Amino acid sequence: MHPLRLAVPLSLCATLAAAATAPYRQTLTSVERNKRAEKWQITSKEVTPRSKVPWSVRKVTLHGGKQEGVDLIHVDNGKIRFTVCPTRGMGLISASRGDLRLGWDSPVKEIVHPQYVNLQARGGLGWLDGFNEWMCRCGLENNGGPGTDRFINNVGDEATMDLTLHGKIANLPAQEVEVVVDREPPYTIHIRGTVHERMFYGPKLELRTDISTVPGSDTLRVKDVITNRGAQPQEFQILYHTNFGRPLLEQGATFAAPVARVIPMNDVAARAINNYPKYLGPTLGFVEQVYCMYPRADASGRSLAILQNRARNQAASVRYSVTELPYLTLWKNTAATNDGYVTGIEPGTNFPNTRSVERKLGRVPKLGPGASYSIAVDFGLHSGTSEVQALTDEIAAIQGDHRPVLEPRPEKKD
Amino acid sequence: MHPLRLAVPLSLCATLAAAATAPYRQTLTSVERNKRAEKWQITSKEVTPRSKVPWSVRKVTLHGGKQEGVDLIHVDNGKIRFTVCPTRGMGLISASRGDLRLGWDSPVKEIVHPQYVNLQARGGLGWLDGFNEWMCRCGLENNGGPGTDRFINNVGDEATMDLTLHGKIANLPAQEVEVVVDREPPYTIHIRGTVHERMFYGPKLELRTDISTVPGSDTLRVKDVITNRGAQPQEFQILYHTNFGRPLLEQGATFAAPVARVIPMNDVAARAINNYPKYLGPTLGFVEQVYCMYPRADASGRSLAILQNRARNQAASVRYSVTELPYLTLWKNTAATNDGYVTGIEPGTNFPNTRSVERKLGRVPKLGPGASYSIAVDFGLHSGTSEVQALTDEIAAIQGDHRPVLEPRPEKKD
Amino acid sequence: MHPLRLAVPLSLCATLAAAATAPYRQTLTSVERNKRAEKWQITSKEVTPRSKVPWSVRKVTLHGGKQEGVDLIHVDNGKIRFTVCPTRGMGLISASRGDLRLGWDSPVKEIVHPQYVNLQARGGLGWLDGFNEWMCRCGLENNGGPGTDRFINNVGDEATMDLTLHGKIANLPAQEVEVVVDREPPYTIHIRGTVHERMFYGPKLELRTDISTVPGSDTLRVKDVITNRGAQPQEFQILYHTNFGRPLLEQGATFAAPVARVIPMNDVAARAINNYPKYLGPTLGFVEQVYCMYPRADASGRSLAILQNRARNQAASVRYSVTELPYLTLWKNTAATNDGYVTGIEPGTNFPNTRSVERKLGRVPKLGPGASYSIAVDFGLHSGTSEVQALTDEIAAIQGDHRPVLEPRPEKKD
Repeated sequence: MHPLRLAVPLSLCATLAAAATAPYRQTLTSVERNKRAEKWQITSKEVTPRSKVPWSVRKVTLHGGKQEGVDLIHVDNGKIRFTVCPTRGMGLISASRGDLRLGWDSPVKEIVHPQYVNLQARGGLGWLDGFNEWMCRCGLENNGGPGTDRFINNVGDEATMDLTLHGKIANLPAQEVEVVVDREPPYTIHIRGTVHERMFYGPKLELRTDISTVPGSDTLRVKDVITNRGAQPQEFQILYHTNFGRPLLEQGATFAAPVARVIPMNDVAARAINNYPKYLGPTLGFVEQVYCMYPRADASGRSLAILQNRARNQAASVRYSVTELPYLTLWKNTAATNDGYVTGIEPGTNFPNTRSVERKLGRVPKLGPGASYSIAVDFGLHSGTSEVQALTDEIAAIQGDHRPVLEPRPEKKD
Repeated sequence: MHPLRLAVPLSLCATLAAAATAPYRQTLTSVERNKRAEKWQITSKEVTPRSKVPWSVRKVTLHGGKQEGVDLIHVDNGKIRFTVCPTRGMGLISASRGDLRLGWDSPVKEIVHPQYVNLQARGGLGWLDGFNEWMCRCGLENNGGPGTDRFINNVGDEATMDLTLHGKIANLPAQEVEVVVDREPPYTIHIRGTVHERMFYGPKLELRTDISTVPGSDTLRVKDVITNRGAQPQEFQILYHTNFGRPLLEQGATFAAPVARVIPMNDVAARAINNYPKYLGPTLGFVEQVYCMYPRADASGRSLAILQNRARNQAASVRYSVTELPYLTLWKNTAATNDGYVTGIEPGTNFPNTRSVERKLGRVPKLGPGASYSIAVDFGLHSGTSEVQALTDEIAAIQGDHRPVLEPRPEKKD
Repeated sequence: MHPLRLAVPLSLCATLAAAATAPYRQTLTSVERNKRAEKWQITSKEVTPRSKVPWSVRKVTLHGGKQEGVDLIHVDNGKIRFTVCPTRGMGLISASRGDLRLGWDSPVKEIVHPQYVNLQARGGLGWLDGFNEWMCRCGLENNGGPGTDRFINNVGDEATMDLTLHGKIANLPAQEVEVVVDREPPYTIHIRGTVHERMFYGPKLELRTDISTVPGSDTLRVKDVITNRGAQPQEFQILYHTNFGRPLLEQGATFAAPVARVIPMNDVAARAINNYPKYLGPTLGFVEQVYCMYPRADASGRSLAILQNRARNQAASVRYSVTELPYLTLWKNTAATNDGYVTGIEPGTNFPNTRSVERKLGRVPKLGPGASYSIAVDFGLHSGTSEVQALTDEIAAIQGDHRPVLEPRPEKKD
């Protein structure tokens, strides 16, 4: 046969094979391509017909009141479900596995469009007008409490600005959003998004996130890459504010994590430090207790923290690298149900003091021009006594004989 | 006959009868059901074919500039027309009866979407960027002038915040909006809406309003229920900022209300107190005059205030309960036409001093957890000498022999 | 013949002739008519079939992220192209002629919807979150740096407010937008828009702009009329912030303009004043240098300023009247590419000090009630050595023998 005639079909085969194995991709939002899908959905049948676990991804747009125009992406991996909100910085609204729901009942019920959030309101606490996510990133220029901090302005002078609670990233819409699904086992589903926190004469920080899950698994991974797109070194902060309410949080629920040291954020927390891993039921007038922790990690540098219910047959886990996120904050807010009964497990690049405090204490990292910082956090939904026991065993193994030091007093901040 | 066979038709009849008498309902906006109608309308023919008075309700969405995406509901009861704005806290834009128009010509011409209002701007006066309603609620966390006030923050400490002019409620969109029409005489038309002024670590106040009118009548009723959805006692304030310009307001127009005491808000108002019920024509450079009044009521506790034109053949009335709204404010702003020629009749839970002043003077009510506060205000459009005379007679009867005390000086505020 | 029969066709002819010569008009946005076109376009074929130069006007709506809902109008006059943004105060995003592009590469890439800009953020520098236009108006109540200034509040008292960088106009949407095309030669294309910067108890300033170009020409004209719609005298400020980056701006590019006096804005600029017309390449850590100039004009009162590339075969020109815009500011910001490599040529009613400084120095004009201020600025795109040489000759002719005075020190501001 004519070699050329053979060559053509061969290369075609290769192309087809590549096409077959190239991941499925669908752009949902693209500033570059001037696109935003109002509605869209896909299921395993269409993309991975050989997958034994049926899965689906569905994009919807919310309407009415403060949620007019908010985008949501619902992912069902066949075992767990979770919801991503591109309009609110690619945050995670909630997750569930059967009757185990991760998330909380904030007094803020709707998914609030950023146009209704004025971060500057209420002395820099305006962020609280939209806060109801299961996992909400705090950053990128700053996170932590509001406070005055210095910056270099356009004329090269040091000026002051009022930083707002937990920064901007949770109230910035993603510019590019796409769904990517591997056509090869294990058929991993990816929700990817890019959020820019950038301005002229200010930070040019980019967040690229890949939120992925394997059909049939009980975990999802948030893989973030933060890049400094400016030409000069740039401070940044990120904290994964992961929040839990009922049913997991209840009287007798407990927090567990391998930790070296636990420091109360303030005097209120100091007084209750001996009970720091234990939770009350909803308590009228409860004032938040915040504990700053130095986590211990396994040989690979990864650590975990869990919240388990009283019966110890349901738990949520947060796994992270102490190299990437060296500081772990536990926020206990077991207030009355209507005021927001919630606890937060928050690994971060820092503790949530206002930035000027964190800088003084050496906990504000910097990125060189063009440099990136990668972070991977895994979230698990665990059901049944044995699954939960395995987690506590793992924590005990990392903790080993090292008893955590409980500091009686808050850190000195001035 | 078989009893069952009889039973079935009977119950069916009952169901049908119930259906016939159950009010007509149409949801226009629902955060819960993820819905927002772009356009919609209904007329008496379709819902109450036996009504002798033709009526209609029409929902439109505004487009262009600052009014992009604003919802309006136009109600025509056959005699009067009025417009409700769900996007701006269920405020009332205007009302009319023939050539009698209630409302005013604000320098702000369009119905401004809240996304274009920054309440914090201009030292807390940003509210003025969108102010042009006939009746605009001021509240719910606070109303009155901007000013610093204290609040309890997340760590249980007293902190300060800068309250903004007249609060948030007029710039919050309704979450749930429905039209309800009774199918039985008098075929009352209801526009219902729910607006939430809620946040984490802050007020959780809910406004449920029912704005109703009977076809062929010359009044509409605003029935509001304010509920504290938080778990702790919560202060609130509400003031019905009802504004009138031409044609009712003109040189020689007069205000009338049964009052016990009239107190000037400041020295400017004090100097003009003897003429407080009388209006000038548009006056270049006129500085607002505000009078705080303790109204008198009839035996049932209800009072009224009116604005009548010079010829005393057109008037607007505001009727309210002094139990619900014990304080009446008169705002005279007979400035030049292009600056906003307007007067406000404003029954409220307080006078419009900044909240810290009102609190000190004992005029900031509190709602217990789950508690509600109900308010009904009736607005009337009156045409013809006899209709207007009846109003002034009614005011005279309530006033009786009690001459109002005109205070020469403003209240002490510090 | 019957006179009437003749009369009819004659008047009909007149009507048809008028129609033929009446300009083509298309409303794209109208608050008054409750209209906003999502997409639209027109070409020379449809409107001016006899035009030898093909032209087009195209309106699009942007989607995704921070640019969701932003309107753009693309004009192609057959020789140059430019883009107008009604959503951002009728600013000019960019212009081009072949490979000559006017505009710059801001770190802010998308066209930001005003809902994502909080002017009050970052100590009054929030404007920088959306700044990436080629030509952006600064004003109208104020422009220049942020700063505290006094104003008269609702009770007639002097109060203070925090003015924000460069004012509001660039973040206000146009209320009325239309495309008008002359059907007679030279078939001028007009993009008209009205933007209101108005509030109750505050400025009521109106900007009417007519952005026009003749098919086949290398210029466009911005003709603005600013009107005080209030009843009292009103200060205003406007500055045409015209920005250039690559390819025109490069190491060795030069600024040229006939000027009487050049004053450095601050000490940083003072140190570099001898090189004020020359540009560096992108320079890491470069701190902005701003020069305030008193321009010289030709006999008709018009002046010009140009930026030319190193090879002097490409240039951009800005032509204006020194009666309308007596002050010219040169902003040099040859920072690193990723931080924004850019220079601004900015004719204005004032220099960009904060308003309280400009007022003290007598550079804040006032408009009487109903009074208007007209400004015409021409922007040219020049290609080829001879075109560029003609510009420098023209500048030299206006400069004549008058050497510019270079002030060694900044102006005294307090």
